[in-house]
Amino acid sequence: MLIRSPEIAEHLFDQATRVSAGDSQWRGQTSDDYWAFIGPFGGVTSATMLRAILEHSQREGDPLSLTVHFCAPIARGAFDLDVRLIKANRSTQHWSVELTQQGGDVAAFATAALAARRPSWSHQPNQRPDATPFEQTRRYPKSHLGMSWVHQYDFRFVEGQPALDGAPQTTLASPFSKLWIADTAPRQIDVLSLMSMSDTLFGRIFHVRGELVPFGTVSLTTYFHADSEDLRSEEARQVLAIANASSFHKNYADQTGELWSPGGRLLATTHQIAYFKA
Amino acid sequence: MLIRSPEIAEHLFDQATRVSAGDSQWRGQTSDDYWAFIGPFGGVTSATMLRAILEHSQREGDPLSLTVHFCAPIARGAFDLDVRLIKANRSTQHWSVELTQQGGDVAAFATAALAARRPSWSHQPNQRPDATPFEQTRRYPKSHLGMSWVHQYDFRFVEGQPALDGAPQTTLASPFSKLWIADTAPRQIDVLSLMSMSDTLFGRIFHVRGELVPFGTVSLTTYFHADSEDLRSEEARQVLAIANASSFHKNYADQTGELWSPGGRLLATTHQIAYFKA
Repeated sequence: MLIRSPEIAEHLFDQATRVSAGDSQWRGQTSDDYWAFIGPFGGVTSATMLRAILEHSQREGDPLSLTVHFCAPIARGAFDLDVRLIKANRSTQHWSVELTQQGGDVAAFATAALAARRPSWSHQPNQRPDATPFEQTRRYPKSHLGMSWVHQYDFRFVEGQPALDGAPQTTLASPFSKLWIADTAPRQIDVLSLMSMSDTLFGRIFHVRGELVPFGTVSLTTYFHADSEDLRSEEARQVLAIANASSFHKNYADQTGELWSPGGRLLATTHQIAYFKA
Repeated sequence: MLIRSPEIAEHLFDQATRVSAGDSQWRGQTSDDYWAFIGPFGGVTSATMLRAILEHSQREGDPLSLTVHFCAPIARGAFDLDVRLIKANRSTQHWSVELTQQGGDVAAFATAALAARRPSWSHQPNQRPDATPFEQTRRYPKSHLGMSWVHQYDFRFVEGQPALDGAPQTTLASPFSKLWIADTAPRQIDVLSLMSMSDTLFGRIFHVRGELVPFGTVSLTTYFHADSEDLRSEEARQVLAIANASSFHKNYADQTGELWSPGGRLLATTHQIAYFKA
């Protein structure tokens, strides 16, 4: 008897971050499924640039860090990725990726450190923050934010849900949030989706002021504390995230985040500086 | 009567971070005064790369972020800095700097975002942590660490001083520290010294284990929450720093820090991923 494997539809995230092979020149394409205010969702752009590195024939090891600069709006459509291995050592690699469209200026660029990680002394000083389980936490209604990328994620706030459904707040709220994040169409978390999720934390200014204001990430860095073997063994389909900010000043604000596996491993930490108008 | 202005000796930090002008090619030189385990102190290398951007004729605005990748040991002596303005917008600039020696591989590279910051809504959710005043805090004895760069800074631990003067600890200590940091030869804090100070926080593993182990920063990002006008008005000669870490795993650990002015302004936040052997 012939047993046919079930037709596995490709996840939207994998479609959105697809790159086609080149030597140093790779190609990608924006996705309408992950669209933000005026361009593609930065998390998917970041994951796409990381994917071009990970699928490169010279790649060795897993990401330790990815820093992305968002320089200019990315137009709907195709883009080129200029991927360069800047320096390789015995166990570490340093890469850069430049994203351009139609031979124009650089619209985004990234630098990454990769390493072949080996067993060592291991210590995680903090424990995963307490939270109601994912299944028992109320899903954030998508209607508050019309952007398509928000619909690709299942946000469940344990604490610090933004008050964006009414009039602007008269008093300032805390920038702190604790929330579960999963792909709306379930997908096991790997380094690419972790990269993207690290940019899903809403601008802290929306939380503090209780209103949407013009906002855009300028530079983002995510550090990975789990390698691909660790991620496979976690088998996580959601992360518990902590987000916070410490300074809103002269049109720029910071933002920090932690992404924990349900099982209690710190998978990634993320930091960014973002523009705001207020 | 002729009044001679006093001879102002150039600060060692300014000597150490000096660059000579070029168009895209700048030159710098390592400093024996800021030497670490096996190469120049990374904070001074970072500040030197930032200086090449700030002294470039096309530079506009103040730094928002600097990310530095340390790829290979930098040998004692001269180095070249390839400075490139990747993209300029109306109020933002994105730069990269590559450091090479004698035409060889890239030993370090940096990316920076700059912006002309304008008055806006301003909010600092947290207050400066409490601390005994700088003058009343005991100076950290330099004898514990022989490297020359440590002698250029005046460290005064309020909390979490590393126990490096005896036998290794038998129990693990906290990675958290709170300390004052100043230049040993007093110097008003500007964006360059702030950049360098952001890399002076000792490897957290030294604190946790109470011993020195092989350690090296792989990638470092510092965000600036004050522009040059803010820094001038603070007139600070020391910062109150907070340092912490959240994961030591498979030879790599993170590290985070906050640098506060004595007057209570958050000047910079800093994050890095570092190699360790333990």
